[in-house]
Amino acid sequence: MVNQQATYAEYADRLRRVREAMAQRAFGALVVCDPANMFYLTGYNAWSFYMPQCLLVVADGPPHLFARAQDAAGAAYTCNLPDHRIHGYPEDLVHRPGVHPFDWISGEIRGLVPAGDVIGVECDAHFFSPRAYFALDRGLPANRLVDSDELVNWVRVIKSPHEVQQLRVAGSIVERAMRTACESVQPGRRQCDVVAEIMAAQATGTPEHGGDYPAIVPMLPTGEAAGAPHLTWTDRPFQTGEATTIELAGAYGRYHAPLARTVMLGEPPKPLIDTAKVISEAMNATLATIRPGVEVDAVHKEFDKTIRAHGMEKKSRLGYSIGIGYPPDWGEHTISVRPGETTELAAGMALHLIAGMWTAGFGYEMSEPVVVTDTGVERLTDLPQELTIWR
Amino acid sequence: MVNQQATYAEYADRLRRVREAMAQRAFGALVVCDPANMFYLTGYNAWSFYMPQCLLVVADGPPHLFARAQDAAGAAYTCNLPDHRIHGYPEDLVHRPGVHPFDWISGEIRGLVPAGDVIGVECDAHFFSPRAYFALDRGLPANRLVDSDELVNWVRVIKSPHEVQQLRVAGSIVERAMRTACESVQPGRRQCDVVAEIMAAQATGTPEHGGDYPAIVPMLPTGEAAGAPHLTWTDRPFQTGEATTIELAGAYGRYHAPLARTVMLGEPPKPLIDTAKVISEAMNATLATIRPGVEVDAVHKEFDKTIRAHGMEKKSRLGYSIGIGYPPDWGEHTISVRPGETTELAAGMALHLIAGMWTAGFGYEMSEPVVVTDTGVERLTDLPQELTIWR
Repeated sequence: MVNQQATYAEYADRLRRVREAMAQRAFGALVVCDPANMFYLTGYNAWSFYMPQCLLVVADGPPHLFARAQDAAGAAYTCNLPDHRIHGYPEDLVHRPGVHPFDWISGEIRGLVPAGDVIGVECDAHFFSPRAYFALDRGLPANRLVDSDELVNWVRVIKSPHEVQQLRVAGSIVERAMRTACESVQPGRRQCDVVAEIMAAQATGTPEHGGDYPAIVPMLPTGEAAGAPHLTWTDRPFQTGEATTIELAGAYGRYHAPLARTVMLGEPPKPLIDTAKVISEAMNATLATIRPGVEVDAVHKEFDKTIRAHGMEKKSRLGYSIGIGYPPDWGEHTISVRPGETTELAAGMALHLIAGMWTAGFGYEMSEPVVVTDTGVERLTDLPQELTIWR
Repeated sequence: MVNQQATYAEYADRLRRVREAMAQRAFGALVVCDPANMFYLTGYNAWSFYMPQCLLVVADGPPHLFARAQDAAGAAYTCNLPDHRIHGYPEDLVHRPGVHPFDWISGEIRGLVPAGDVIGVECDAHFFSPRAYFALDRGLPANRLVDSDELVNWVRVIKSPHEVQQLRVAGSIVERAMRTACESVQPGRRQCDVVAEIMAAQATGTPEHGGDYPAIVPMLPTGEAAGAPHLTWTDRPFQTGEATTIELAGAYGRYHAPLARTVMLGEPPKPLIDTAKVISEAMNATLATIRPGVEVDAVHKEFDKTIRAHGMEKKSRLGYSIGIGYPPDWGEHTISVRPGETTELAAGMALHLIAGMWTAGFGYEMSEPVVVTDTGVERLTDLPQELTIWR
């Protein structure tokens, strides 16, 4: 059984690498708002991110966690911080006009960060609002706030052996969930009933490892709507003659392995069969390019070259870095597999390569979640790449 | 069967009321970023909110929708906007250092809003980041941006008959999901397996109405951890001697009916039985105070008075306004049921009254989602208020 908890030594190493990146940008402190980054640095894990919260990385010692009082009270169940580093803001600051929890938080930070220090702030993190930023800025007149960009996200790009283990378990969960999905899509069944089976499989996980909640609900755009990849389900029944693209993830201890496949009900049109064949060829050619030292741009080029040889083209990116995920996104906001991405692959990176093709009134999706190894690539799932056909 | 689509007349009325509120604050335009507000005004509904997007309400005509190109292409499936009001930003702006999709969006807005106009902006909406705000501000040098506060949220506070119908369906879904939950919590079962059954029930809905995805996953903190209400599940088995508090929602067409109950495995300790009795008494006394014209503060007072008479106290708010919800929150961010809330109840308001009591090492939760009627209150669910006990 794979332990979800990273060791104290691993947390210390993560913090050390974040501090190195902070030093390069001359940050005296860092305000971390992305729940995935907060989890990465401390293990803190609760559905509390709908309320203002953050982590403050200071020069010495463990980070400080700021959260709503009722969440701060339970923070010790998941995070590795000592009690005196956990701070709860009063309940009456919740959704109260004219005042913001970050007014209170900035007051606390004033006592923790020396005047004059530049403070990095995660200015594009989900759930960190402009109003929160202005409260922080107002409350810290002796400090300058600077957008930290995706500083912590980039530290997360190379996964430790512990993290790769989590991803493998997530892979085993998504494999089961996708098998369930491909078997459940049948003519006459309501979309919502198929989703019910998928979500049950995602939560059940495996006998050894229970599933965590994925950052995104299962997506299964169908028929004409398959051209709109982020539409969520309805209670319309599946119909013969339609293709359904399915994208979903398995999650374990907040680590995500996403996966996409396509199901055809009835005889597939020839272009769909052709697309499936070309995409599988292109995906395998692409996987074969992956090894440490290769630029991500070259990985994309291989895919692009193969599909162009068959007269096809794909405008959106081919994939992105994966790891820890919280709603509404399981992407890491770092590497994008697309032209011009100069990042060099390194062992421990994890990518979701997803070929979503939306053409001529039908959609086709097929993907592979993978980890870069010392010598090449490891697939996190082992599911046939083909189009599933129910005749 | 209840239709999920509001009529064009209803959308026009919602827009008219938003424009009235804008006029009171002298806004020439309004940038709407909260996905629930975007849905309310146009019907736009997709899991696209993990990428920058917004709605621009201008002086005349329908709003403008701005979204990622691949989402804009599918927007017409759900929203009522004409094609020329839907704008897709280029794919290569996604997660690209040094540039933000709101740079592009602000350029478009420059052509749509007269110079000199004050533009209201939803500065505390989930998913609208400081970096997005700065890009907007930079791109609109001839306009002043002002925090619109929860302007659209407050327009949403009074539900139309169509919306009340959606809430009733959501109520019928959550009732089934909660029955499933209370039956599934059994000694030796893994938490994740119980969640699997709950999530399946939430998606299945009823034979007439399929369930939509709730904005929050089921929460069922157990045993000692019940004092931490927002912890998510693990794969630990339930044990005799533990109480589990369950909070979950039914969703239909994005409308949410949340509900909370508590399950005891084995003989409940006397304080838990007493708490359940007091809370039920207090909840019913509280419901009896609800009718148009009553201040929310008075509703809270009734609850507080009743539990204090039994030597109990509750620090966090007793509830909040509900309606449309998107992850990570099904609350509306308007009315809070707590001391000093001067909002007067009116027919069509919808509240989730939730008594979460965390004391002495165990938790107890019980709630009622309700709608204010012309003469009193309508419960959206009809489930016994008692503590479920499995001996």
